[in-house]
Amino acid sequence: MSLSLNQWTTRRWSVAEAVDGCVRHGLEAVGLWREKVAEQGLARSAALVREAGLRVSSLCRGGFLTAGGLPGEEGRLAFGRALDDNRRAVDEAAELGAACLVMVVGGLPGVRPGEPLPSRLSGDVAGAPERVAGFSKDVAGASEVAGFSKDVAGARERVAEALSVLAPYAGERGVRLALEPLHPVYCPDRAVLSTLGQALDLCLPYPEEQVGVVVDTFHVWWDPRLSEDVARAAGRIASYQVCDYLHPLPADVLLGRGMMGDGVIDFAPITRAVLAAGYTGDIEVEIFNADVWAADPDEVLATMKARYAELVV
Amino acid sequence: MSLSLNQWTTRRWSVAEAVDGCVRHGLEAVGLWREKVAEQGLARSAALVREAGLRVSSLCRGGFLTAGGLPGEEGRLAFGRALDDNRRAVDEAAELGAACLVMVVGGLPGVRPGEPLPSRLSGDVAGAPERVAGFSKDVAGASEVAGFSKDVAGARERVAEALSVLAPYAGERGVRLALEPLHPVYCPDRAVLSTLGQALDLCLPYPEEQVGVVVDTFHVWWDPRLSEDVARAAGRIASYQVCDYLHPLPADVLLGRGMMGDGVIDFAPITRAVLAAGYTGDIEVEIFNADVWAADPDEVLATMKARYAELVV
Repeated sequence: MSLSLNQWTTRRWSVAEAVDGCVRHGLEAVGLWREKVAEQGLARSAALVREAGLRVSSLCRGGFLTAGGLPGEEGRLAFGRALDDNRRAVDEAAELGAACLVMVVGGLPGVRPGEPLPSRLSGDVAGAPERVAGFSKDVAGASEVAGFSKDVAGARERVAEALSVLAPYAGERGVRLALEPLHPVYCPDRAVLSTLGQALDLCLPYPEEQVGVVVDTFHVWWDPRLSEDVARAAGRIASYQVCDYLHPLPADVLLGRGMMGDGVIDFAPITRAVLAAGYTGDIEVEIFNADVWAADPDEVLATMKARYAELVV
Repeated sequence: MSLSLNQWTTRRWSVAEAVDGCVRHGLEAVGLWREKVAEQGLARSAALVREAGLRVSSLCRGGFLTAGGLPGEEGRLAFGRALDDNRRAVDEAAELGAACLVMVVGGLPGVRPGEPLPSRLSGDVAGAPERVAGFSKDVAGASEVAGFSKDVAGARERVAEALSVLAPYAGERGVRLALEPLHPVYCPDRAVLSTLGQALDLCLPYPEEQVGVVVDTFHVWWDPRLSEDVARAAGRIASYQVCDYLHPLPADVLLGRGMMGDGVIDFAPITRAVLAAGYTGDIEVEIFNADVWAADPDEVLATMKARYAELVV
């Protein structure tokens, strides 16, 4: 077990720069992102980490499997595209020798990550919906509304359905899918997978080496069932990611991840529970934060190492 | 069972105006707030609702019981003050004949609702903490830091401890405490009570008529255990509150509550589950939303009635 840099923490760095940074700072592992790998080239990225002697603690990310919940042909096509993209992600994880492929499963069908809800009147009227006195004037009455679906239970069924296709595919290629429960604030647009317990239940039909879970402190610190569910996750923890939970969250809640020590999380009890559950993988620091991204990446790595030693393990 | 106006939805209205509005719009119940009751006068407020023939579906709110988690004398005094304030809230609920006293239990000890974290360096250096490269320069290493506590499990124990004092006090006065789980985004500063399941577990030591739970659609819609926990809540649901969950949340997340139909929630399945669990009380609409507060309150009530009929029941 050792500290790993998730490369989104030093977002301005390419794969080559992140690999070089890890080596200079004495890290043994790196978590890669598909976008960065594509920019660097897949074969070149694989060669870089191999030549540097680094482990790839994770590849981020597959997922976004819920669009199939849209009605009719649109849903069917979206589901097929999502499966195709996830098969490619599995192939990339295999070539990189990644310890797991992180899966962010997707939000309500038709709600795009980081974007407002589609206008529920878009199918009925031209232009923006008329709003009166603080609320929209007209409203669709059912769970299926123009442009997106409110059926959160159905979206969760789509995830299970996609896993039944993707888990065997990953297993045949020696890749472990890592289901990541996200904080409930991301339920509308990024992940209807909201708790560790729910993620564990989704794993059960599959062998441990095919499907596991991510424990990310930012997403789970608040969960009253955390201790018992981490214990229940023995053998299923594919990735342990750390960063702090800032309070208040910034207006873009995606960027509420902070350097360890800058928020509300008490890391030591969570780390103890993860280790007690038998986790022996690397511990990734993954920070989405405009200030951290603007900082000197070498300063970020130095701070990350110090905080990790002081607060996390 | 009938529609009730939580008076914070028409925030500019006094108790007298809210009572008058309910009567004009044909509602049979109103949910009151302690601040508004204090402005109107407790005895006068009780007389107004009685003379109008309205039920008081809830009094908002007691709680904020976690400050006792601060160390030493400061914690002891804060816990005592919180108990005193909650006893007064129980007395007020009794005089108003409220169906329950809603309890928002409080966040991490020392974190004030809606305010940033206290500076963790405030005890060490004068002025604002020095920040370097996007993160604070120094950091306290333990779970207890200057000004607030990161011990979320401990804060939850303080809530249980307070209930052991307040539940019998309420029981003697015929008042039912209603524990409200809040969306996890409010865990740092408003409620370490984050799920319905956790609230139900806190109820167990007490008779149903002393301690129940609030099911508020905004706070629980995302919960993968919602169906089973609402079923488990049979006999314990003291209040059912509805409003929509806006997406994205506004910068002040407290104001992310919207008129039904303006957000992501599918109300019908939640209402069916609550009714199947035997709930026979009123259904309160409680909206914190700057635009709704700026609107004509009579327009708000008319819209609320229409949306309720179309979407909620």
